[in-house]
Amino acid sequence: MNTLVIYDITDDNIRAKVAEECLSHGLIRIQKSAFLGVINNQVRKSLIRRLAKILGDHRGNIQIFIICDKDMRFRKIISSEDYTPEGDIIFL
Amino acid sequence: MNTLVIYDITDDNIRAKVAEECLSHGLIRIQKSAFLGVINNQVRKSLIRRLAKILGDHRGNIQIFIICDKDMRFRKIISSEDYTPEGDIIFL
Repeated sequence: MNTLVIYDITDDNIRAKVAEECLSHGLIRIQKSAFLGVINNQVRKSLIRRLAKILGDHRGNIQIFIICDKDMRFRKIISSEDYTPEGDIIFL
Repeated sequence: MNTLVIYDITDDNIRAKVAEECLSHGLIRIQKSAFLGVINNQVRKSLIRRLAKILGDHRGNIQIFIICDKDMRFRKIISSEDYTPEGDIIFL
């Protein structure tokens, strides 16, 4: 299933850990704080558990959406040519 | 249709204008740079046109997704209790 993860997290380290977890679960970065990819239910559930553990008591919000193939066809991207979503990656 | 708008924009003013446009088209803020709401095709198309015009040649990326009601039921929110998405609203 197409899975979209978006987040707004204050702490740089927590944000980086969330990004790392999305990557290691097979999602790719589409924006600074948004990851998308095709993963199965089991992987998505594992990702959700991990993200909840990482956020813990830190201030922030993570939202996970499933988007069916039919809806994905309506996705619109408005972007500058020089845009890369990797702007603020923090290596731990 | 459930419409989700997510963006990553460098310029504070452009970011604020995008937020304002999402609000004026009937979406609500769910994260600092994410808006969600139920709007019809005509309103969504108008919003997409306006967002493209606002971003213009500025650096950034805006993505618009449609999410059907069936998929919306799988939405997961992981959040701290003190989270508010209004953290950095800039009033123009």
